[in-house]
Amino acid sequence: MDAAQKPAAVPPEQVFDWLDAEAERRADAGLTRRLRPRPATSTELDLAGNDYLGLARDKRVAGAAAAAALRWGAGSTGSRLVTGSTELHAELEHELARFCGFQAALVFSSGFTANLGAVTALSGKDSAIVTDKYIHASLIEGCRLSRAGIAAIGHNDVAAIKHALATRRTQRALVVTDSVFSVDGDLAPLPELSAACREHGAALLVDDAHGFGVLGDGGRGAVHAAGLAGEPDVVMTVTLSKSLGAQGGAVLGSRRVIRHLVETSRSFIFDTGLAPASAAAALAALGVLKSEPELPGKVLANATRLAEQLTDAGFRASRPDAAVVSVQAPSPEDAVTWAARCAENGVRVGCFRPPSVPDGISRLRLTARADLSESDVDTAVKVVSASAPPRAATS
Amino acid sequence: MDAAQKPAAVPPEQVFDWLDAEAERRADAGLTRRLRPRPATSTELDLAGNDYLGLARDKRVAGAAAAAALRWGAGSTGSRLVTGSTELHAELEHELARFCGFQAALVFSSGFTANLGAVTALSGKDSAIVTDKYIHASLIEGCRLSRAGIAAIGHNDVAAIKHALATRRTQRALVVTDSVFSVDGDLAPLPELSAACREHGAALLVDDAHGFGVLGDGGRGAVHAAGLAGEPDVVMTVTLSKSLGAQGGAVLGSRRVIRHLVETSRSFIFDTGLAPASAAAALAALGVLKSEPELPGKVLANATRLAEQLTDAGFRASRPDAAVVSVQAPSPEDAVTWAARCAENGVRVGCFRPPSVPDGISRLRLTARADLSESDVDTAVKVVSASAPPRAATS
Ligand SMILES: Cc1ncc(COP(=O)(O)O)c(C=O)c1O
Ligand SMILES: Cc1ncc(COP(=O)(O)O)c(C=O)c1O
Repeated sequence: MDAAQKPAAVPPEQVFDWLDAEAERRADAGLTRRLRPRPATSTELDLAGNDYLGLARDKRVAGAAAAAALRWGAGSTGSRLVTGSTELHAELEHELARFCGFQAALVFSSGFTANLGAVTALSGKDSAIVTDKYIHASLIEGCRLSRAGIAAIGHNDVAAIKHALATRRTQRALVVTDSVFSVDGDLAPLPELSAACREHGAALLVDDAHGFGVLGDGGRGAVHAAGLAGEPDVVMTVTLSKSLGAQGGAVLGSRRVIRHLVETSRSFIFDTGLAPASAAAALAALGVLKSEPELPGKVLANATRLAEQLTDAGFRASRPDAAVVSVQAPSPEDAVTWAARCAENGVRVGCFRPPSVPDGISRLRLTARADLSESDVDTAVKVVSASAPPRAATS
Repeated sequence: MDAAQKPAAVPPEQVFDWLDAEAERRADAGLTRRLRPRPATSTELDLAGNDYLGLARDKRVAGAAAAAALRWGAGSTGSRLVTGSTELHAELEHELARFCGFQAALVFSSGFTANLGAVTALSGKDSAIVTDKYIHASLIEGCRLSRAGIAAIGHNDVAAIKHALATRRTQRALVVTDSVFSVDGDLAPLPELSAACREHGAALLVDDAHGFGVLGDGGRGAVHAAGLAGEPDVVMTVTLSKSLGAQGGAVLGSRRVIRHLVETSRSFIFDTGLAPASAAAALAALGVLKSEPELPGKVLANATRLAEQLTDAGFRASRPDAAVVSVQAPSPEDAVTWAARCAENGVRVGCFRPPSVPDGISRLRLTARADLSESDVDTAVKVVSASAPPRAATS
């Protein structure tokens, strides 16, 4: 539009007409999304959620949430810096840090806001950020907010990351990665990334949302498994909404990193503290994880079993490094139909399409849980196979 | 740094040394912040939290949270688009929309992520955003993420907003404002803003975080009070963490706006759904508000009483339009000392300093609640007065 031209007057009821055009474009591309609210109880086999340890409905965890709501109130009533910090938040932070092997932790209202806070506070316009281009959307939003120069590198290309670090124009740099990539469930090469950071004087920020509770000694996560827990140049984020079955997120690092986040993270300072019920649930789930260190192994065993059987059945299933098994679909429409048929047959699976898939390939996304039985896995494979669209299987 | 120059190698334990320099700068400016976790019960008089209706600890609300954790689980287990939507979320959305007079609503995990989602999804690079420069940090982050051209206008300057709309270079435009500004508690001129939008074919997005539950018929909010509820060109956001005493946020608008958010808001799609306990608490609190429509009036009466008595005592207190009363302090250090002395004397007040105050003026921030007694207000005024630093009072 020409600067001198006055924008056309639009009647109020037409101001949002552009949304209809966009909705049509999405519909034409097979990318319509609808909410399907679920009831409290269901006989469906759930292979779509991220409740990896099956703790969201565990009586110890749900019971702790209920007790905390009654004892502390339904909400935290303010920013963590005003009235929103309770002794419950402090205890959760202490236990998370100790379990994962870091000096300190800071709890946010979600994993999403934890990632925003960590990326923005640890970079800035005097910093370069180098990322894997498949990182989670919340990390990407953090990068966009950071004002840093950003190099988004091809998936798991350590050489290119090194090159970007070596040729950056700022002294400070931050490498940002998922530990387990959320769509395909594959692992980042954390030891190599850390070595690259050290060679080039950069800090490393790892989002361990899908590794924590599943990988590493007793579920301490992928950062711990890589020997990087507590390292002074490494910062880790987790969510409380997956393995811990609750809501919320946390950043773990050295005391000075955490202090810096308290004082500068806008998504921490300007956000109401996590609800006491969610904090208590996460704390109770962490207690269960500590007392049952065999749980994470069960997740991996079930994921492996699921992937092997699906591969044997001829599908393009990923080899799982953690709980996530992805199965490629021929098209977005096929993925939707496939997932819908699975649901009709009693198995809920995730359906990921653009723009949620960085490589543009639509897929089913199946998650293994510690509490799946062998017969659950068999049922899942049977239903996924029977519901498959033409061309989904390679054999 | 010169592009050809290789960044200096840094030992891992020195990678974050720059944080210490920044911490020193903040300390020198009197801007250090520390978390002070509170116990479950306290005899302190709380004038710092945002639990305006006193519902966070109401048995009906906390009880609903507890029951929901047991019935639905501690977490929602996934994105709202995968497993994170329950019938509880749907019911809350239905009730929020009906109460506030909009066609539809969408619940997010926080008010922060609701604002990110609304601003980004309703603007974009083909859009102009015109804002009041005192808007909440979460709206500002949304603007920064939006890729839109942004004009941040001086506080409450409708003429300048009109000028920015008239001279924009895009057909589409979105005006973004708080209804009640969070630091000083003053009202935006919503009718004038809406008229400006209509004159220039723009949409209006109002964050009613501090108006909802306090202003308008039965607490329906400032948008409703301005006669703008349900208008096709108006979108409203609320938090569930203030008047409703829970956690979470929501966007309210026409059905097509809400459908668009479901399909395009990154902070909705890539975030775990709100915990069932928080959704149930918000729903129960909304029920209380409906059955006790006199609650909002009590908040305003208490805020007015508080402000008048503080003004009479010689302080620079704001004239409250809603629950928030702000009292200017001579300096950031004075504000900290003042708030700390109030706490020692049994009254918890908020202390806002740069960068949380858009005008750079440090202040105490007091919030009135519906459940404050006259003697609570008297006590508060007595303690704030007795704790004041030199030069705080004008008389
Ligand atoms: C890798 C990753 N990081 C962060 C998040 C955000 O965490 P939350 O949903 O707890 O906000 C998610 C999922 O939602 C995720 O998959
Ligand atoms: C005006 C305003 N909008 C949005 C928010 C964010 O809401 P929440 O804390 O529920 O994330 C807040 C306060 O935190 C606020 O004051």
